[in-house]
Amino acid sequence: MHPFPTLIVDLDIVRTNIERMTAKAEKADVEFRPHFKTHQSRKIGRMFKDYGVKAITVSSPIMAEYFVEDGWNDITIAFPANVLASSYYHRLASRCNLKTLVISSEIVKKLDKLITEKMGLYIEIDPDYGRSGIPVSQTEKIAEVLNEIEESDHFYPAGFYCHAGHTYKTRSEEEIKELSLKALKKLTALKKKWPDLPLCFGDTPSCSVLDEFVPADQISPGNFVFYDWMQVQIGSCTPNEIAVYMECPVVEKFEDRKQVLVHGGAVHFSKESIQVNDYLSYGEPRLKHLSKATYMKSLSQEHGIVQCSKEVFEQIKVGESLQVFPIHSCLTADLMGQYHTTNGKVLDHLSGT
Amino acid sequence: MHPFPTLIVDLDIVRTNIERMTAKAEKADVEFRPHFKTHQSRKIGRMFKDYGVKAITVSSPIMAEYFVEDGWNDITIAFPANVLASSYYHRLASRCNLKTLVISSEIVKKLDKLITEKMGLYIEIDPDYGRSGIPVSQTEKIAEVLNEIEESDHFYPAGFYCHAGHTYKTRSEEEIKELSLKALKKLTALKKKWPDLPLCFGDTPSCSVLDEFVPADQISPGNFVFYDWMQVQIGSCTPNEIAVYMECPVVEKFEDRKQVLVHGGAVHFSKESIQVNDYLSYGEPRLKHLSKATYMKSLSQEHGIVQCSKEVFEQIKVGESLQVFPIHSCLTADLMGQYHTTNGKVLDHLSGT
Repeated sequence: MHPFPTLIVDLDIVRTNIERMTAKAEKADVEFRPHFKTHQSRKIGRMFKDYGVKAITVSSPIMAEYFVEDGWNDITIAFPANVLASSYYHRLASRCNLKTLVISSEIVKKLDKLITEKMGLYIEIDPDYGRSGIPVSQTEKIAEVLNEIEESDHFYPAGFYCHAGHTYKTRSEEEIKELSLKALKKLTALKKKWPDLPLCFGDTPSCSVLDEFVPADQISPGNFVFYDWMQVQIGSCTPNEIAVYMECPVVEKFEDRKQVLVHGGAVHFSKESIQVNDYLSYGEPRLKHLSKATYMKSLSQEHGIVQCSKEVFEQIKVGESLQVFPIHSCLTADLMGQYHTTNGKVLDHLSGT
Repeated sequence: MHPFPTLIVDLDIVRTNIERMTAKAEKADVEFRPHFKTHQSRKIGRMFKDYGVKAITVSSPIMAEYFVEDGWNDITIAFPANVLASSYYHRLASRCNLKTLVISSEIVKKLDKLITEKMGLYIEIDPDYGRSGIPVSQTEKIAEVLNEIEESDHFYPAGFYCHAGHTYKTRSEEEIKELSLKALKKLTALKKKWPDLPLCFGDTPSCSVLDEFVPADQISPGNFVFYDWMQVQIGSCTPNEIAVYMECPVVEKFEDRKQVLVHGGAVHFSKESIQVNDYLSYGEPRLKHLSKATYMKSLSQEHGIVQCSKEVFEQIKVGESLQVFPIHSCLTADLMGQYHTTNGKVLDHLSGT
């Protein structure tokens, strides 16, 4: 047993998750450009090659570098271009088919003075999520940015990129479907106006429950490779489809309050939480039988307090480990910096390199 | 300007914070055993030596190893002993004067079979915080654990360790004082019963506002070295005493909603938040003049959305950086893995090594 909190990955589940999403993309006739921000692992990244994946999505120039060095040569940095990092884009664009996102013609102008390599620019479209992007209704602004891209000698329009992140607020498969179909419907006018420009869509909840993505041409989900307890709550997956869990040493038991202290805190899980029924959960013990009364109740820097049902409390033993599903696998993996497979091998993660 | 989110440390403020706490401990006649879990930096750790600090506190065996290798030889791991990590305690105890916490005689018995080096054990006392430790009223249980320690050939009683973590729920200096004095008062009976055993007390809020710590003999605050926006809200410090801030590239501005997109997300700040008046803040822009309407409204993996007052929005420029105080400096530093000083030097952090 591991002496410290350890992130375990079940590669069989990873493979099944990749296989299912690849098959779905193929059937729906959309290009699959998976987001690698969840696993951030070269070894896990290579598993996608077995399924014909050639183009990937990342969330930062550093992450793009990590995968360029592993032979990937069609990479989209799905984050609005940061002019302070222009030298990174320039260098990356000389090494691969690089694309990133833009929202304003001002940025395109600024980048055009700083980058002389050929590079694709997606215009980010906001489907009422409200985080980033041009609202889908602002056709004039979209045309203005597109025009600016076309005037550049170095840039070409890569298409439209649209992340419907508000699906994370749903709590059932039906709700996800309703919300994502509404977002896709809004994009129809855009696609009609610019039929030749690829439209990339894709958050894990939408891509998990939809079978058709019209009018989108590409999908780029990321979290689906592992899933997590948040995705179970949203309605994207079942607990059996979660590919990662933490193994936390059981340090003490508190009989009177039916709580267990594990080594596993905010520096391991992250401080992400989700409301589950009437409690706020920071992690969900991976038990043979689901127990509504058992959940990670609080996290300090290194402490995790697990509230237990009477039965679960009696089964847990000091000196053993408790397996816990993370609420948000992307953040937990980023903190842990490496994976241990169920066969005891160690896999890389960018943050641990 | 840094192209990516960067953690800046102002060493003048660090020095002032250390100096103030050292002077306070001296005046109050308590031993100062600072917690190093906040900075986790050898270089920052060495600054404490200038103020006569000889004994330190950490939160894990790995952190203890990091500081043993930098010459510290009196180290308390302020986390209940994890029997799965017994080989680490054993090895550490052969290299320094090691202490850790215990809560039950069962654990003392188990450890005694696994560790043959001399080692101190603090009995952790819970001052109604409810996370870990023996409730202060359970004198019999305390005596039982103490007895088990005294029967061991390898262990000796290091004293009582008491973390009043519920001070983090207060919202003014007066509230902190009331709560921490109440906790200290509860410890009086313990001290009377075992006058020869040192009593270690200390969370940053209590140590920041109290001047006397009777009946405690030692204090071990950690966060005070940097402080953060949570400590400002709790009532422990002023914004001028915060020694760290993030520099985040300003990527885009959204005029209609007076929001700014910065590169700086949950993998940089952590997902810690705090309720400030009527909003939930994930970070507080470091501005010349405080603006109640300006705060970090949401964080995704790499995105930070800053809600701005009209005036602040106009001052912020794309292609520049925005300085942001973290909500919880311990977690932000752990994620960032290194510090940049205001003079451009880079300082180590355990997680980046």
